[in-house]
Amino acid sequence: MNIEAFYHGTKSNWAYAYDNNLIHLRVRTQRDDVDQVTAITSDKYDWDRFYKEFPMLKTASDSLFDYWEAEISPEHKRLSYCFRLSSGDRQLWMTETGIHSEQPYPTGGYYAFPYIHENDVFHPPAWAKDAIFYQIFPERFANGDKSNDPEGTQPWGERPEVDNFFGGDLQGVLDHLDYLTDLGINAIYFTPLFLSPSNHKYDTIDYKKVDPHFGDNKLLKQLVETCHERGIRVMLDAVFNHCALDFPAFKDVRENGADSKYVDWFHVNEFPIAVKDGIPTYDTFGFFESMPKFNTANPEVKDYLIGIAKYWIEEIGIDGWRLDVADEIDHHFWRELRQVVKEVNPEAYIVGEVWNGSLMWLLGDQFDSVMNYPFSDKVLEFFSGPGMDGHSFASSMGFLLMRYPKQANEVVFNLLCSHDTPRVLTRVGGDKRRLKLCVVFLMTYMGTPCIFYGDEVGLQGGGDPDCRQCMQWHPDMQDNELLDFYKLLIHLRKENKALRQGSFRFLKADPGDPCIIYERIDGDTHFTIWMNNTEERVTLSHPMNTDDWRDALSEEEVKPVDGMMNIELDELGYRILYRKLK
Amino acid sequence: MNIEAFYHGTKSNWAYAYDNNLIHLRVRTQRDDVDQVTAITSDKYDWDRFYKEFPMLKTASDSLFDYWEAEISPEHKRLSYCFRLSSGDRQLWMTETGIHSEQPYPTGGYYAFPYIHENDVFHPPAWAKDAIFYQIFPERFANGDKSNDPEGTQPWGERPEVDNFFGGDLQGVLDHLDYLTDLGINAIYFTPLFLSPSNHKYDTIDYKKVDPHFGDNKLLKQLVETCHERGIRVMLDAVFNHCALDFPAFKDVRENGADSKYVDWFHVNEFPIAVKDGIPTYDTFGFFESMPKFNTANPEVKDYLIGIAKYWIEEIGIDGWRLDVADEIDHHFWRELRQVVKEVNPEAYIVGEVWNGSLMWLLGDQFDSVMNYPFSDKVLEFFSGPGMDGHSFASSMGFLLMRYPKQANEVVFNLLCSHDTPRVLTRVGGDKRRLKLCVVFLMTYMGTPCIFYGDEVGLQGGGDPDCRQCMQWHPDMQDNELLDFYKLLIHLRKENKALRQGSFRFLKADPGDPCIIYERIDGDTHFTIWMNNTEERVTLSHPMNTDDWRDALSEEEVKPVDGMMNIELDELGYRILYRKLK
Repeated sequence: MNIEAFYHGTKSNWAYAYDNNLIHLRVRTQRDDVDQVTAITSDKYDWDRFYKEFPMLKTASDSLFDYWEAEISPEHKRLSYCFRLSSGDRQLWMTETGIHSEQPYPTGGYYAFPYIHENDVFHPPAWAKDAIFYQIFPERFANGDKSNDPEGTQPWGERPEVDNFFGGDLQGVLDHLDYLTDLGINAIYFTPLFLSPSNHKYDTIDYKKVDPHFGDNKLLKQLVETCHERGIRVMLDAVFNHCALDFPAFKDVRENGADSKYVDWFHVNEFPIAVKDGIPTYDTFGFFESMPKFNTANPEVKDYLIGIAKYWIEEIGIDGWRLDVADEIDHHFWRELRQVVKEVNPEAYIVGEVWNGSLMWLLGDQFDSVMNYPFSDKVLEFFSGPGMDGHSFASSMGFLLMRYPKQANEVVFNLLCSHDTPRVLTRVGGDKRRLKLCVVFLMTYMGTPCIFYGDEVGLQGGGDPDCRQCMQWHPDMQDNELLDFYKLLIHLRKENKALRQGSFRFLKADPGDPCIIYERIDGDTHFTIWMNNTEERVTLSHPMNTDDWRDALSEEEVKPVDGMMNIELDELGYRILYRKLK
Repeated sequence: MNIEAFYHGTKSNWAYAYDNNLIHLRVRTQRDDVDQVTAITSDKYDWDRFYKEFPMLKTASDSLFDYWEAEISPEHKRLSYCFRLSSGDRQLWMTETGIHSEQPYPTGGYYAFPYIHENDVFHPPAWAKDAIFYQIFPERFANGDKSNDPEGTQPWGERPEVDNFFGGDLQGVLDHLDYLTDLGINAIYFTPLFLSPSNHKYDTIDYKKVDPHFGDNKLLKQLVETCHERGIRVMLDAVFNHCALDFPAFKDVRENGADSKYVDWFHVNEFPIAVKDGIPTYDTFGFFESMPKFNTANPEVKDYLIGIAKYWIEEIGIDGWRLDVADEIDHHFWRELRQVVKEVNPEAYIVGEVWNGSLMWLLGDQFDSVMNYPFSDKVLEFFSGPGMDGHSFASSMGFLLMRYPKQANEVVFNLLCSHDTPRVLTRVGGDKRRLKLCVVFLMTYMGTPCIFYGDEVGLQGGGDPDCRQCMQWHPDMQDNELLDFYKLLIHLRKENKALRQGSFRFLKADPGDPCIIYERIDGDTHFTIWMNNTEERVTLSHPMNTDDWRDALSEEEVKPVDGMMNIELDELGYRILYRKLK
């Protein structure tokens, strides 16, 4: 056994309370190196009386490692434990102090989960497990009120530039709620809505005022209420890392320099405020002089911004916050924000924008979820063309799953693209079949899926600003076949809990072969998803010992032959089978 | 290269801000497997402009791994990075997404340290780096006031039992401050002082009242003030996990059952309050019915207990809190406690009682330090007799150092024994020479050392209650030679910053050989410590290219011969050499 590959950590993604009774333990070993891992557990205050062994299951693998899991309900909320690892005749014991060839005397050096505290348990909102989000960039979704158009508004559908406007607004969203209901989504994520000079509005001037080009606060409240009546939740974008040059506090600093009473609201490294050799003399988002960074450690700033988060929940009843540039704000700020937000809405969904591994924010005290760009990177790499095989793709998914506790994986914000990346259809080379494979995967995988407005009707576009095109509303220009496909998949996910919360497993993910089969299963339904990720027709086969399978989209019966299911697939085709278990 | 052995994690002991400008990065590789590791760094918002490479130093090793470190001051408080690992001609790049045979295109998939936030930086109090603690168990240290002795007080020096009393009190401590000053310690850790029925007082009845058998609040205040006048800091014991049966709130629950207004102050699983088959129907410390566990998630309880922590700082100016059973209380509680405590005394030292790995409490938001029992375990194992060689001991120390960020290692509470373990002299088989090796190591190693009262005069004793003997005050019965040795070592540490904060390195720590040589060094002084951990006379040799070395205890000159320092050592002997660098 490669003992240097063994890994376990306490109080982390490797050992956490899933709920008030259940502890999840994970162990890592080198891939295909260890036959069996057993969790040896008890209560350190009475080892003999509460001693139990739990065989661990190999639940995921990545390119280097296997991951083993056990779910354990300790009798008195606490657990002392170690692991026994076996390969052939050889056994090793792994404790906090190292690897041993005999079981060390309990409990010195054993790992500890000292006590399950309900208030330390990570509880994301349950509804987020069932949500299907739709991301709206308001300036480009629909122009419902010409009277509030910005000066110089361009004709709908022209080429987006960094600084041009097309007049999209909240009335436009209200006007198209039937469209969204028909599409089937049940949650909207709005990029920023508040007063700002830009079209993206990530540089805020007034956090309490809807931008007049979008409407007003009353209209936003009406929109949220109307969404709620339709069973659609609403998440707004909290841009708390930085503001606009004309945000009053920064304007005061610009005007009064070191004498400004707001000088500690920002990180000014040198007066006067200026840009020297491309670098502002104050901290900013990136090096953008138009986005001065807040000093969120200043209690005044913290109270102000967290007050904003509270205000919009209380005022108009929003269901969550997406936190912009979340990794560049301090942890104290986010902990307090979570506390305040959950006090006013215990079911609020808090999603951080973090592009990297986000474990430190996903342990229960800060975010519920993060925007899962690492997911989209791998899904797009796999389905956009040759290069990655099923084995490598499954490894990537396994790696991502094992980075976070299960409750984070259940509501992690899975997306294929956003206002900050090229459009998914563009990234798969404009090939609709590849786009569909991505969407099938998104809609049948764990986590909370999000569709970027317009993807469903075939919008294309490269990176910002090209991905921020106007929504296509002309019926002749919408890709109705694609739209129907999206509706079908959304419907399928909504109707089947197994696709949202069932356990996930790859049935086929082989080296050198880009075709995959995987399953989702819960007590009610068993799904198998078959994907031909090649440009040739193929037949995928897998042993199946029941003949009660149906095609989930056509309801056609699909029978195995001699215990083998053989599924013929078109080039870049897929098929979703299911059978009822009850 | 064993790539499964490579490890790095973000926002943890593997990547943290040491101060407001400096980021520490660590990488792990299999021991003796990799020749060189380089940190490749830049700013993700302008990669080419701020690109830099930093060779990493191998700063520690354990039985399986080498650990590499780099200290990096990014220009704009943020860092994107990956690592290049070389062995012979082979090079590999390690990023967040995996191991690569070519350097991936920046910055997708690179690790991120998103921003150094001053309020997230872990700042333990500076004085703790220079402190030498003395732990006092007040019932057994000195009886200064016979009038407050408990009923049935036994003659000083009789055998300690679980429930007997000897009359030790605060006046006794006051009376012996000259002794402590003479010994040289500059901080006292008192086990609990508040009203409680037991001799150890870990079951509190009144958190605001000094136990009358010890004195009163006024006397405690006088004691703290007198200590401060002598330059001695005072740390008290915060027993916030549980209370006594007669703590008023629990008494009310016992009397009124489910109708008690304090019912949510505890975790009562079943009424009536009882013990069934050895298990109380309410959560307790261990299974001790006399110690009901608080529900610290209840805001009333939290506010009450944190109020206590604040009260004693404001009321009598204590310098720190040692937190009893700290791992069994929730993280929310500790985060708030830190905030409140540091508001009233920014230099307060917060030490958790956690016997396991404690990383999750040592990231800057909860504790400054933990009681380092894993340290004492290894030091005692090594110096108590044959079995462990220098290589294995050095590996253990390396393992422990790499578990925490450097600022935690600088103030981790290093002890050889306490009221909860057998006495150090007993654990080394009563061999004073072995005890001295332990003490030399303690006093010349990183971390904040603590001496358990009486160790310095030769007290012995097994586990609780035997280790809680009465202090030996009779001059003829004190081991004066040992006492002088303690004074010498304490003095040496206090006089030499290199021994407290200098860098540490083993110069000799070989397989099969229990003798070790190590160094401490800063800009002023260079120490080498030579230890013969065998029962035979040995001569240890190490290359030394200067001839300015002196014995730190005798000031005798010690010269190398032909570039080799040869140090003859008695059985279980040691020698401490130094040279001035300025």
